[in-house]
Amino acid sequence: MSSEIPNVSAADEEAAVLLYEPLLQYRRQQEPPLELQRSQFNNTSQVAIVGSNLCPIESLDYELIENDLFKQDWRIRGKIQIFQYIFTKWMLCFLIGLIVSLLGFFNNLAIENIAGTKFVITSDMMLARKYIAAFLVFASLNLGLTLFASLITALIAPEAAGSGIPEVKAYLNGVDAPAIFSLRTLFVKIVGSISAISASLNIGKAGPMVHTGACIAAIMGEGGSKKYGLTWKWLQVFKNDQDRRDLVTCGSAAGITAAFRAPVGGVLFALEEMASWWRSTLLWRAYFTTAVVAIILRALIDVCLRGKCGLFGKGGLIMYDVTSANISYHLRDVPPVLVLGVIGGILGSIYNFLLNKVLRLFNFINEKGIFYKIILACCISIFTSCLLFGLPWLASCRSCPSDTSEPCPTIGRSGNYKKFQCPPGHYNDLASLFFNTNDDAIKNLFSKDTDSEFHHLSMLIFFVTCFVLSIFSYGIVAPAGLFVPVIVTGAAYGRFVGMIIGSHSNLNQGLFAVLGSAALLGGSMRTTVSLCVIILELTNNLLLLPLIMLVLLISKTVADAFNGNIYDLIMKSKGFPYLETHAEPYMRQLTVCDVVTGPLQIFHGIEKVGNIVHVLKTTGHNGFPVVDEPPLSESPVLFGLILRAHLITLLKKKAFLRTPVPIGPDAFLQFSSNDFAKKGLGNGDKIEDIKLSNEEMEMFIDLHPFTNATPYTVVETMSLAKALILFREVGLRHLLVVPKVSGHIPVVGILTRHDFMPEHILNLNPSLTRGRWKRLRFRFPRLGRLIREL
Amino acid sequence: MSSEIPNVSAADEEAAVLLYEPLLQYRRQQEPPLELQRSQFNNTSQVAIVGSNLCPIESLDYELIENDLFKQDWRIRGKIQIFQYIFTKWMLCFLIGLIVSLLGFFNNLAIENIAGTKFVITSDMMLARKYIAAFLVFASLNLGLTLFASLITALIAPEAAGSGIPEVKAYLNGVDAPAIFSLRTLFVKIVGSISAISASLNIGKAGPMVHTGACIAAIMGEGGSKKYGLTWKWLQVFKNDQDRRDLVTCGSAAGITAAFRAPVGGVLFALEEMASWWRSTLLWRAYFTTAVVAIILRALIDVCLRGKCGLFGKGGLIMYDVTSANISYHLRDVPPVLVLGVIGGILGSIYNFLLNKVLRLFNFINEKGIFYKIILACCISIFTSCLLFGLPWLASCRSCPSDTSEPCPTIGRSGNYKKFQCPPGHYNDLASLFFNTNDDAIKNLFSKDTDSEFHHLSMLIFFVTCFVLSIFSYGIVAPAGLFVPVIVTGAAYGRFVGMIIGSHSNLNQGLFAVLGSAALLGGSMRTTVSLCVIILELTNNLLLLPLIMLVLLISKTVADAFNGNIYDLIMKSKGFPYLETHAEPYMRQLTVCDVVTGPLQIFHGIEKVGNIVHVLKTTGHNGFPVVDEPPLSESPVLFGLILRAHLITLLKKKAFLRTPVPIGPDAFLQFSSNDFAKKGLGNGDKIEDIKLSNEEMEMFIDLHPFTNATPYTVVETMSLAKALILFREVGLRHLLVVPKVSGHIPVVGILTRHDFMPEHILNLNPSLTRGRWKRLRFRFPRLGRLIREL
Repeated sequence: MSSEIPNVSAADEEAAVLLYEPLLQYRRQQEPPLELQRSQFNNTSQVAIVGSNLCPIESLDYELIENDLFKQDWRIRGKIQIFQYIFTKWMLCFLIGLIVSLLGFFNNLAIENIAGTKFVITSDMMLARKYIAAFLVFASLNLGLTLFASLITALIAPEAAGSGIPEVKAYLNGVDAPAIFSLRTLFVKIVGSISAISASLNIGKAGPMVHTGACIAAIMGEGGSKKYGLTWKWLQVFKNDQDRRDLVTCGSAAGITAAFRAPVGGVLFALEEMASWWRSTLLWRAYFTTAVVAIILRALIDVCLRGKCGLFGKGGLIMYDVTSANISYHLRDVPPVLVLGVIGGILGSIYNFLLNKVLRLFNFINEKGIFYKIILACCISIFTSCLLFGLPWLASCRSCPSDTSEPCPTIGRSGNYKKFQCPPGHYNDLASLFFNTNDDAIKNLFSKDTDSEFHHLSMLIFFVTCFVLSIFSYGIVAPAGLFVPVIVTGAAYGRFVGMIIGSHSNLNQGLFAVLGSAALLGGSMRTTVSLCVIILELTNNLLLLPLIMLVLLISKTVADAFNGNIYDLIMKSKGFPYLETHAEPYMRQLTVCDVVTGPLQIFHGIEKVGNIVHVLKTTGHNGFPVVDEPPLSESPVLFGLILRAHLITLLKKKAFLRTPVPIGPDAFLQFSSNDFAKKGLGNGDKIEDIKLSNEEMEMFIDLHPFTNATPYTVVETMSLAKALILFREVGLRHLLVVPKVSGHIPVVGILTRHDFMPEHILNLNPSLTRGRWKRLRFRFPRLGRLIREL
Repeated sequence: MSSEIPNVSAADEEAAVLLYEPLLQYRRQQEPPLELQRSQFNNTSQVAIVGSNLCPIESLDYELIENDLFKQDWRIRGKIQIFQYIFTKWMLCFLIGLIVSLLGFFNNLAIENIAGTKFVITSDMMLARKYIAAFLVFASLNLGLTLFASLITALIAPEAAGSGIPEVKAYLNGVDAPAIFSLRTLFVKIVGSISAISASLNIGKAGPMVHTGACIAAIMGEGGSKKYGLTWKWLQVFKNDQDRRDLVTCGSAAGITAAFRAPVGGVLFALEEMASWWRSTLLWRAYFTTAVVAIILRALIDVCLRGKCGLFGKGGLIMYDVTSANISYHLRDVPPVLVLGVIGGILGSIYNFLLNKVLRLFNFINEKGIFYKIILACCISIFTSCLLFGLPWLASCRSCPSDTSEPCPTIGRSGNYKKFQCPPGHYNDLASLFFNTNDDAIKNLFSKDTDSEFHHLSMLIFFVTCFVLSIFSYGIVAPAGLFVPVIVTGAAYGRFVGMIIGSHSNLNQGLFAVLGSAALLGGSMRTTVSLCVIILELTNNLLLLPLIMLVLLISKTVADAFNGNIYDLIMKSKGFPYLETHAEPYMRQLTVCDVVTGPLQIFHGIEKVGNIVHVLKTTGHNGFPVVDEPPLSESPVLFGLILRAHLITLLKKKAFLRTPVPIGPDAFLQFSSNDFAKKGLGNGDKIEDIKLSNEEMEMFIDLHPFTNATPYTVVETMSLAKALILFREVGLRHLLVVPKVSGHIPVVGILTRHDFMPEHILNLNPSLTRGRWKRLRFRFPRLGRLIREL
């Protein structure tokens, strides 16, 4: 494409070659590229690739890239473009809210109808005393649904397995796991979640809803899915990372809102748990998104209240109206609540510990192949069906209370008094919990004026079963949330404690169930304000606030002494290089020089095409310092930093020079800033796809106009902790390290996310044994050893 | 103090002098210091001093200062110290929560009893038909209370006037107005607020409570008040800015919680409106603090419910229990709510606009002296008394409804039906609103099933009066909040709209009042999530959530088109150099070089005492680059940045050297890191207080061990916008600008907060007319001109 090369006269050409001659003399040491240090991170089948400078996956970069091209682009930006940009941003938030609320509603509708039909069929057979047939139908329906969910997950989108919250959280922190926001992941997440939950597995819908919301936001932020030809030109105004990640934050807030009808809780959850960078403008936008969700959901429920939604009726779209009466509690009610919080914290940390161990075990099985994955899911389904159908037989029939407002035994699907195998006028309390969707079980547990409804033993059995089932169900290859299982387990725990305390407290048992849920959630998820608000929005009673705050504070404090929050544990086990806000104490003792490793690949201001191709092919780096050397400057000067993606664009456009002369302003005519806009996840071009002739390989590129001329830099003597503050707060992907005394090299290295990972640092500096610096934290050493030996 | 000078042998001394000779040759240009650019900021009497590098007030600095001394200190820090630090942090949060809740309770108790007694006395006289005497007693009591409040404010602590939220917000952004957190400010804020509110002025208690909470936190964070000899050794573990500002954030959250009994709302308000830097650990700590407040308040109310708190009884500690019945609303209720939001937004922005203008007018009066301030306050008090007592006479007496559960006319102080001048069996609806505390008026307006209780005209009169009074009452020299007046005005507005719409909507008028409050708050304060939660916590009804969200969204959007939020306007009129998160568009066109001004004062690594004293006395800079020159290094090298406070400590300790040789590690023996710990507000030593002999002036200081060797730097070609991101996100006070090509000077300037102020930039670059870049925003040009001409 010689026509694209600017014309240079013969004399110019000669002069230029002379000028470049000394540059050509300079031979950089072409050492082999760094190995991906997978081994130390990659514990599970879901691979995470570590070190954003080391691997070709796209990763976060909030740095303002200031090269001549972008500056030019910014200068000519008119008011209309700015207005279009702002308008599109808000419109997208509205669309995300709309779509997420419709999907959330559809999810609930589908689950209530599928699971409801299943329970109605089985109950009818039970009424006809065909117990064995009922069990077979129940178990095989569950098995079929589980099989379907796990098959589509395993075959179409393995990324859709699990909750999705850890993946979204990692994405917002800057780790882009491959394919987590593709259209097929979205499809599997929705359909898989519906069928897995309808299969009575003890899993939740909140996590998948968050992932769904984030997925929709990500796809819309990229202007559609290129792979499936679904793109919208007018949506493609977001060229940078920040806008896209902001949208994903809004999407995840919308997800929580759609799952729990908790708009404020959704915003707070996105703020407290998900987002790594937060600005108040984002708060305002997330709030707008969740308001849209809340208002649309409210309107849709109005439609359903008229009975047009099948079995949905009163069920679904949870709002557990605990107690509309005034609750009064006094000082003497505080000690039981404290005990509830402490035990809840301990239980929560045990839950996290066990879940983590079981996940490792399951990963070990899942790695063997798809067949094993499916078998595992089926086993869990059969096991669950047996427990759900079998355990209620242990409970003795209880006679119906005379003063209840509900019919007893329950007619239809939902209600507190399930007949199961009992004679007329009696009900089976365990069946009321087991033989129900999780939503209904929670409603039953939270309900007031039912203090004598459940037996001690029934509650204990239910609690233990839920605890075990939720741990074993999460790891299967299907979309599975953690929120609802923890709520139901916690409610059972709280109610059990309430029963033991009995009349020693003024609080009724429904209230104890709410507090128990709060305690277990606090012990497992470890968020505070957002959980508090979510529980309030779920139960619709603000008078509970001080008690819930107390319980959450205590359970979180207790649990924090043992281990980390569940999503962090899962992220760690998946090997995501999550960048923490705080620096570890040993980072203050290390300078940035101590962690910068490997040979540094440097480009010249005017570089040979062949060199660029060679370096791009032999290294995995994503950013390269550009250095001007004599004779272009007096001494070697750091000109800036150029990104791999931009180099590939340059190579693809073949904007080459025959001679090493600086190009003039006409360079910009060949490019628009869109060419350099950040590509969507996994949509970047690869160096291997670019074919260049030998002649082209001998030509030159003037990198100056495309180089970020003002990268952030730190001095080599800076402590790692201080560099981390800059890296983390500003949201960088590359941080250049410059020497204290400017000598013959103007740059000593590049810091990336990888260099701040404790594993990497401790690997380089084995003398810093981790134990010496770790925070005050108790462990379960024996339990850990025991499990490891298994 | 020659004994403190390390011993140097004669030979060493000679060698050193030789070594230093070339350094002494170097003469820096000692140009006159920069003038404080007060004129362009300082519009009001409350002076703000601008440019943290230019003035001696302490300002924010989150940078990790890495000098040898601090590194040494960190290295020897044991586990016990770390544990003590963590423990003290949490304990302080607990103490802040405890004290703020007690103060908040005391505040309410005092107000309810003082104002209650006043109303009881007046009502008794009214019953005896002594109308003129009643008015005189009412007006003179109000006048007396106002006089007391304004006298103590004007004489003891003028800083306690106004809301206090703008000051705290500016402090958290890094602007330290003098004396805002002193003990006397705290005292005046509490006592003045009680008496001003009891004087029936239309002002609120939330703002003063926030300031009180912040004050307590600041005083405890500094380990007590040195001035009054109240210090606690064990509290003095917080040596840096971040810890102290974190505590103040917790304190302000506690303040909102104590004012409204809204713990979650308090945390969110601190997050959304107050804090400029937020971390999730801080969220957790703020939540803990507000939980403590909520639980203690709850316990104290239990005590009062037994009737031991005088007139407090059911009043005070607001929780307006709007409707415990289920609220149902449908699509057709949405249009009125939209209208309410739009008009609320417009009213809110007019409110902000007028308040700002009235404040300027009042400042003009207040500047004339204390006497004028007091007179102004008294005039407002008399004006208020006249309106409150006079306007109810305009309303006609209405006969009591037969189906009310309350007694009519009201017996005692609070209730919906005030008798005023009416015959038995009748009530005066305007008096029920005017002749009451604001809390009770809000309760009356929010109450349900009272749709026919108020007359259209009464409501309109009440709304207009409140609107006018709240604008004129804020500017007087007394502690005065804005929250409650806006709530009561908004409630009147909402109820009036509800009356007009009448039976066209399902919503009752109490609900309209709540939504009206939300609309006006949204239009004035412009926060979203926190206001939403505060209103929910106030009204205790979560079913309102979607409607409140809708109203807030709309009113904020509408109002944002006209002007900024009320606290920002007040901050601006006070001249605080508030650092915004986002960069203005023109900042992308300017490089940092364009704004760095003035001669740069540089110190050498080993500097003469006389030079240091001279520079410190003749400039107001707070940070100085330290440069090593030949022969100490090959070429001039930037060693780091030293702070004024640290230089003064060095001068005070007189750690001088007779000869310019580097000091060894024994330098540390003379100092502990406590000497260099950040001083409390206004407690720093001044250069003028240090007396040095002529002999000492000729000696040297080795600055190396005390210089921050790794300051953050940016290259001179970086755009101002990009530098602002670093400056703002990391929370810096100084940012060194280094040249692109290292030449003979290794540093070209220092950026401070001052350099990022739009006023400063536009002053330097008049070509950037502000209008060209300003955001899409409508104005009230005519109204503005009209007022200006007044």
